[in-house]
Amino acid sequence: MQTPRIDNLQYANWSEKIFRQMRDGGLDAVHVTIAYHENFRETVLNVEAWNRWFQRFPDLIFQGRQASDIALAQASGRTAIFFGFQNPSPIEDDIGLVEVWHALGARFMQLTYNNQSLLATGCYEADDSGITRMGREVIAEMNRVGMVIDMSHSAERSTLEAMEVSARPIAITHANPAFWHPALRNKSDHVLRALGQSGGMLGFSMYPHHLKNGPDCTIDDFAEMIARTAEMIGAEHLGIGSDLCQDQPDSVVEWMRNGRWTRTRDYGEGSANAAGFPDQPGWFRDNRDFGGLAAALARAGFSDAETGGIMGGNWARFYAQSFGPMGG
Amino acid sequence: MQTPRIDNLQYANWSEKIFRQMRDGGLDAVHVTIAYHENFRETVLNVEAWNRWFQRFPDLIFQGRQASDIALAQASGRTAIFFGFQNPSPIEDDIGLVEVWHALGARFMQLTYNNQSLLATGCYEADDSGITRMGREVIAEMNRVGMVIDMSHSAERSTLEAMEVSARPIAITHANPAFWHPALRNKSDHVLRALGQSGGMLGFSMYPHHLKNGPDCTIDDFAEMIARTAEMIGAEHLGIGSDLCQDQPDSVVEWMRNGRWTRTRDYGEGSANAAGFPDQPGWFRDNRDFGGLAAALARAGFSDAETGGIMGGNWARFYAQSFGPMGG
Repeated sequence: MQTPRIDNLQYANWSEKIFRQMRDGGLDAVHVTIAYHENFRETVLNVEAWNRWFQRFPDLIFQGRQASDIALAQASGRTAIFFGFQNPSPIEDDIGLVEVWHALGARFMQLTYNNQSLLATGCYEADDSGITRMGREVIAEMNRVGMVIDMSHSAERSTLEAMEVSARPIAITHANPAFWHPALRNKSDHVLRALGQSGGMLGFSMYPHHLKNGPDCTIDDFAEMIARTAEMIGAEHLGIGSDLCQDQPDSVVEWMRNGRWTRTRDYGEGSANAAGFPDQPGWFRDNRDFGGLAAALARAGFSDAETGGIMGGNWARFYAQSFGPMGG
Repeated sequence: MQTPRIDNLQYANWSEKIFRQMRDGGLDAVHVTIAYHENFRETVLNVEAWNRWFQRFPDLIFQGRQASDIALAQASGRTAIFFGFQNPSPIEDDIGLVEVWHALGARFMQLTYNNQSLLATGCYEADDSGITRMGREVIAEMNRVGMVIDMSHSAERSTLEAMEVSARPIAITHANPAFWHPALRNKSDHVLRALGQSGGMLGFSMYPHHLKNGPDCTIDDFAEMIARTAEMIGAEHLGIGSDLCQDQPDSVVEWMRNGRWTRTRDYGEGSANAAGFPDQPGWFRDNRDFGGLAAALARAGFSDAETGGIMGGNWARFYAQSFGPMGG
């Protein structure tokens, strides 16, 4: 079996075109966001929308539920779609919904999306009080059922505490090292080292606000950053989480930032003068560009095995150890 | 018009008996909790239940919406029932629900109930990061529409920041000074002084876990504590918020503590050996006992005017300045 190719974070304006581009790009699995601010019932509507996509395009995509679905995708020439949340809003204030969501296929859940949640502190808050009382309970429950804790949008202390509290390795599905580009969303050396030491995974983001020089970032600079991160924490903890938001209108990024928590307008990583989605770098427009990324990793000095791991093998291993019940 | 008598916090297992006891005790207004953990829709069900009580006992109770309803209660020999929340759960993650709830009659909302919320930190969390990004927005919205910020179950820093951020005075509807009984739920001198200086109100609680010597606390010790608090922050900032949970089964206090945030069991102010509701002190069993409290205040040295203020006049003044739109 060839090493799989996996993108561990996308939130596109889904269409047949994009599913075909996934096939053209050789994606065996994609972790898709099905909730930013949606509550339980609203997220169920997003599941229903995905069920309709699965029914319409059974030759292109199917719902992934376990790591072995990656092999099924490879064998059948399709892309396995794994569900995840960028916010714990789908469990509302109800720990019992963690198990319910696992049954519905959710495999990743961020404990926060920028702001304070009931579970932890987001990276846009002024102060970070760490994992809350409910957060500790929910982490244990996620560990138990096999749902991955994702701290991509969380603040530093909360992220470190999540690794300590969690009995299973966690993920930062889409972010880059702050040593390369010091964005609020990128991660400190301390977080990256702790992540690697605890067996966690980092997915590199190609969202322009997370890139040095934004849309002008070069592919070789990006690959070189991955090489430096590999030296720091080991290539086996690295993968891709592109944060591709293909074909989304700017109204979507405004909603991502503002949800329904404010009556004023928050610009997040943008600004009043640049409120919309930033332009993607020319070397990563859509799913067909993953081949170019693999080539850049090779140029940066990675072996074939390392490149394969970063392009999907490491996520496949992590899926295998993460999606089943604890001890299972 | 006689000085009104007001209890600014009750959560009883409501019945005709209790409504008649309110009349016997001379209560012109009672602020009742209609949400501990309920989300928007569930809290609407509690409003519906209250609507049925109002329809069944129109000679005893009616829904209070504005301060002038206290005078209406006095003129018609009934008790005005004002709604409030002990948790922001009824607004979920939606700031737009503040205005909706004001239209439905909610006049007080705690920013937290023991645990971290989306808005602030509760008094049972290990660390307190203060008012969150959403919390600042929601405080401004509560100020705008005329909903009182209640920090009874909040942690110290969050409570102090709420006073700073809020453009209108806030309330601590049911708690006692920590100098008298150092419970987690009781308030420091620093919080009490800041509350008085900002024009806020403190409602004294007769919930046994908030009392020195618990159910054995004497009425004169309670009144003496009120006198010491008056010396510290001024009698005009003091009222009653009895926290009376009359006729509730122990399953209710277990639910109050555990909601649906944990799969283990939290005992809150109780313990495994004393998990249920504590016994009330003998001098405060139900609404008929307010007369005895007024007499104890007089014995503790309060003037008639001061006693009248603490027994309801101060809350009436606070209602008048708090329940309308800002600047209105």
